[in-house]
Amino acid sequence: MSDYLNSINSPEDLKKLSLDQRTVLCSELREFMIETVSKTGGHLASNLGIVELTVALHTVFNCPEDTFVFDVGHQSYVHKLLTGRREKFDTLRQKNGISGFPKPSESRYDSFVEGHASTSISQAIGIAHAKLLSGDNSKTIAVIGDGSFTGGLAFEAMNNLSSDLTNLIIVLNDNSMSISKSVGSLSNYLMRLRTSSGYLKFKRSIKNTIENVPLIGQPVSDIITNSKAALRRSLFGGILFEEFGLNYVGPVDGHNLQELEQIFRNLRDTSGDSPTFVHVITKKGKGYTPAEKNPGAYHGVGKFDVDRGNPDISLADSFSNTFGRTLADISGRDDTICAVTAAMKYATGLQYFAHLHPERFFDVGIAEQHAVTMAAGLSKGGRNPVFAVYSTFLQRAFDQLIHDVSLDDINLLLAIDRAGFVGEDGETHQGIFDAAFLSSIGSFKVVSPSNYRELIWWLNRLIGEKGARAIRYPRGKECSELSSYSCTGKEYDLYSEGDRNILFVTYGREFAETLKAQTLLKAQGISSSVLKLNVIAPLPEGAVETAMQFGNIIFAEEGIMTGGIGEQMIAHMASSGYKGRTALKAVDTNSVKQGSVADQIAQFGLDGEALQKSAKEMSVEKKD
Amino acid sequence: MSDYLNSINSPEDLKKLSLDQRTVLCSELREFMIETVSKTGGHLASNLGIVELTVALHTVFNCPEDTFVFDVGHQSYVHKLLTGRREKFDTLRQKNGISGFPKPSESRYDSFVEGHASTSISQAIGIAHAKLLSGDNSKTIAVIGDGSFTGGLAFEAMNNLSSDLTNLIIVLNDNSMSISKSVGSLSNYLMRLRTSSGYLKFKRSIKNTIENVPLIGQPVSDIITNSKAALRRSLFGGILFEEFGLNYVGPVDGHNLQELEQIFRNLRDTSGDSPTFVHVITKKGKGYTPAEKNPGAYHGVGKFDVDRGNPDISLADSFSNTFGRTLADISGRDDTICAVTAAMKYATGLQYFAHLHPERFFDVGIAEQHAVTMAAGLSKGGRNPVFAVYSTFLQRAFDQLIHDVSLDDINLLLAIDRAGFVGEDGETHQGIFDAAFLSSIGSFKVVSPSNYRELIWWLNRLIGEKGARAIRYPRGKECSELSSYSCTGKEYDLYSEGDRNILFVTYGREFAETLKAQTLLKAQGISSSVLKLNVIAPLPEGAVETAMQFGNIIFAEEGIMTGGIGEQMIAHMASSGYKGRTALKAVDTNSVKQGSVADQIAQFGLDGEALQKSAKEMSVEKKD
Repeated sequence: MSDYLNSINSPEDLKKLSLDQRTVLCSELREFMIETVSKTGGHLASNLGIVELTVALHTVFNCPEDTFVFDVGHQSYVHKLLTGRREKFDTLRQKNGISGFPKPSESRYDSFVEGHASTSISQAIGIAHAKLLSGDNSKTIAVIGDGSFTGGLAFEAMNNLSSDLTNLIIVLNDNSMSISKSVGSLSNYLMRLRTSSGYLKFKRSIKNTIENVPLIGQPVSDIITNSKAALRRSLFGGILFEEFGLNYVGPVDGHNLQELEQIFRNLRDTSGDSPTFVHVITKKGKGYTPAEKNPGAYHGVGKFDVDRGNPDISLADSFSNTFGRTLADISGRDDTICAVTAAMKYATGLQYFAHLHPERFFDVGIAEQHAVTMAAGLSKGGRNPVFAVYSTFLQRAFDQLIHDVSLDDINLLLAIDRAGFVGEDGETHQGIFDAAFLSSIGSFKVVSPSNYRELIWWLNRLIGEKGARAIRYPRGKECSELSSYSCTGKEYDLYSEGDRNILFVTYGREFAETLKAQTLLKAQGISSSVLKLNVIAPLPEGAVETAMQFGNIIFAEEGIMTGGIGEQMIAHMASSGYKGRTALKAVDTNSVKQGSVADQIAQFGLDGEALQKSAKEMSVEKKD
Repeated sequence: MSDYLNSINSPEDLKKLSLDQRTVLCSELREFMIETVSKTGGHLASNLGIVELTVALHTVFNCPEDTFVFDVGHQSYVHKLLTGRREKFDTLRQKNGISGFPKPSESRYDSFVEGHASTSISQAIGIAHAKLLSGDNSKTIAVIGDGSFTGGLAFEAMNNLSSDLTNLIIVLNDNSMSISKSVGSLSNYLMRLRTSSGYLKFKRSIKNTIENVPLIGQPVSDIITNSKAALRRSLFGGILFEEFGLNYVGPVDGHNLQELEQIFRNLRDTSGDSPTFVHVITKKGKGYTPAEKNPGAYHGVGKFDVDRGNPDISLADSFSNTFGRTLADISGRDDTICAVTAAMKYATGLQYFAHLHPERFFDVGIAEQHAVTMAAGLSKGGRNPVFAVYSTFLQRAFDQLIHDVSLDDINLLLAIDRAGFVGEDGETHQGIFDAAFLSSIGSFKVVSPSNYRELIWWLNRLIGEKGARAIRYPRGKECSELSSYSCTGKEYDLYSEGDRNILFVTYGREFAETLKAQTLLKAQGISSSVLKLNVIAPLPEGAVETAMQFGNIIFAEEGIMTGGIGEQMIAHMASSGYKGRTALKAVDTNSVKQGSVADQIAQFGLDGEALQKSAKEMSVEKKD
């Protein structure tokens, strides 16, 4: 193996290589990412697809003076490797390691924190306007996937492009699938552009021309321009984008480094009369056969064996799949149930439902707002819709939950996956807000099961109820300590040891930590009880009164403290005249950094050990 | 005046009239709405523009079997008048009267609660899918304005249209302006469609044809179809919509009743191979000269004199304009300040800024998500952005506030207008969630001034600070009782009467009510104090300790109770060992019905009279 990659410490080093050397570098980058991700886990397929595009951008432009904005940002690994983070790359997604997403605090080459989809064009427009106001002539380049492009935010931005933003380039990284297969009209449109004969003709024309150019570095602006005009005439390509007032270039082969560099060089050196839209076709998983064959399985992976290519994609044992199998099962008996996902069929476990009931399954693309409001429409039409979504992405539909669901007579069940800490994805993906914002909306009944049995029982129960309902459960598997607990079907459970001294109040997965604390205390001869909320909103009748019988109460909440369930309950108790001691253990920052879930639980004093310590301190204080 | 309107108690009555009679009815409807709204206030211009369109829809289709979905819904007055609500129309927007928006609980002809923009296509898709699943052959018709069409939710829906939804008709009510002038690429595109020669040709072709048709009711499907094909050939019209897989019809003259009815009849009787998109051109304010001349001023109006046409549009004396003038003033001295609005230039008071600093003013259209994320981009580019927005519409950008602002190093000042009760607009527009959700996000510094002086002082202060900041203020004018209070510039103020018995804790406009309570108590020889929070998040240092010195504390909050500032503060006090009495007066429902602001304050026991009563009860209890 040659060793260009080890010589790259900044984009400047990249520019010193020849085109041939950069081509070899592309292979090295792929090899390096496959090796590393097979050990750390992470997003693989999208990064294999974006190698040449990233190398071309960094070769031609001057990041960070020219601003690069990577949408969603899990496609930024190549960018990270080219900007001085190669040596730390094996700490990817680990505690104190480098992030799986762009992060300005990690590198000056990263412009924004980017973990959610569809943000890049808006961010780039803002930066580009700011540059115009400051007389800064550098470029701003948004790189957005075709999946992200379906989000409403991206469209709002597209609609807001003004012709004076000639310093703005939008690169559509079109790999014809987002996380699952892209859906929708835009996807069909892109498909027509991709498969049209014009694309092939364009490629040929570029190729012939380049062969006749003696020096590789020579400007080719007129060639590109003519090709584009020809393309437009021949296949009508990009009319949709041109209707948005954009200069459309493409489709371009995203794995032809030479072609990409020429197009970008032209865009760098000539100044158009509007923003430019470059439509680049890439192949997800490119260069690693198992990932090319099954890019969905290599979107986000755990550790795997490089030679055998065996990522664990079944995840049969998970809350997601327990939910998915249960829903599919119930839906066999009730044909009013419909399932909705926003481009997360497999990740939310809905593949079982989709397989059995395709006519009642709706994948709306990355479009959480529409998912909620469309589901409201299904409800008005007499259906019983279930929207399965990650907690962090549900934030996108906050207003729809208030206005389109709660204020109307809507039946909607939210199946909220990845509620609580999410581990390695870090701060952009934490599910720490849903308990606070759903309870604040008021009309949602929110259930927080702690193990599979409870998930199954409550899902069966809630599906038969009316109104706005939510069931929220953590990422991954159930804790082994909880698997033996049966579901009582009550709104709350009291695990009492008789004495009314110490009470832990909790819900969801955190129940396991309070049980650990209880065991630790017992070993020291201190008895304690656990009040486990199963329904967390509205606060179950009797829960406050039950808690008030105890002298020292510790709330343990895997969620944001301010406005959370603990604060709500303490306020109720205070208004009811409670005079005992309370302590609140919850998340006191909106920025919970990457690491294992166990790390994150410990960080906020939510582990069993810390909880028993807090309890002991309180009861000692009491004896003073 | 003829009297067809008085004979219309349901759409069935409409169908009995002749085309000529319905044409007269259109005039009657306009006269009736102008008369009524001049007395009640309300949305006028958009309803004058949609008269023929609504009459045509109700004549041709069978609502409610055919489902009508009116986007935003302030364009639903004609629909209300035709569906049995004429006699109650003078109670429009009054307490216990009919709503200014569609409301299923008010009438079976209303399909959804509709107060926010861009929801209709999603809702209609949901209903249409449900109908297909049930074998229901009726149609679903979404009526959406060109302003609402720019919202990301509408695009997410457009992208999710599937060809099997042949039962779905989307009517674009294109009046070339939303609340302010429409902005953006879509607007330019529609403009080109509207002004193209093809439109006129289309109108002529329809007209000639109709003149040759002996019976008005005769099917004209082939004519329409041919006209459309001709139109497409001649001006390439609707290509954008056809790219979305839609059958495009238009542009159609929205004030030609006969033409509209023919097109709708054709769509009713023939079944296409995809959803249909009907592009209707209307004139906002049509038929009332003052409103035609200045439709913006008659969008939402208070009472006015019909003959003189003098709605109070200056609103010089308001929080909005105080904000707007102050910001324009500061921005003269600081050229890094940029102002962003989502189609609310006048309503938020930004007209002053826009006039003085057009190059730094950004109206992004109805696109709150983009407004926030684009502002984040401005911040990264070294600018100091201010986004002025109604509290209720800011809900749309919840995830952007978390992910794109709080998790990144962004400087953004939110100027949150209509925070608290909004009065006549009712439940869809209440600004009761922002205090809870902004404080829960964590990194926002939130200031809640109670009068103009405080708004001015704190705006000057906050604009010079960094990070995520918000200043929130109520709709309308400052209370006269508060105008004499000076701004202390402190994070909280204590208005003490010495004694440590009773304390009211409050913020914002509600301060006036606690002062009233204090006065009422004083008259009875009971002393009390008021703790007024100026910074409500994060809770100011010292505020909790100060409050804890009092034996009876009443929190008075013009906002949602669950997760609100009162609960947060009580929880802090309890954890700090407070043993006194607390009571929480706040909004305990997400659905605060229309009425005056005073009604709404009283409804939740937040008026001075109720507060003094609560305080007395608490202190009597204490003496027991």
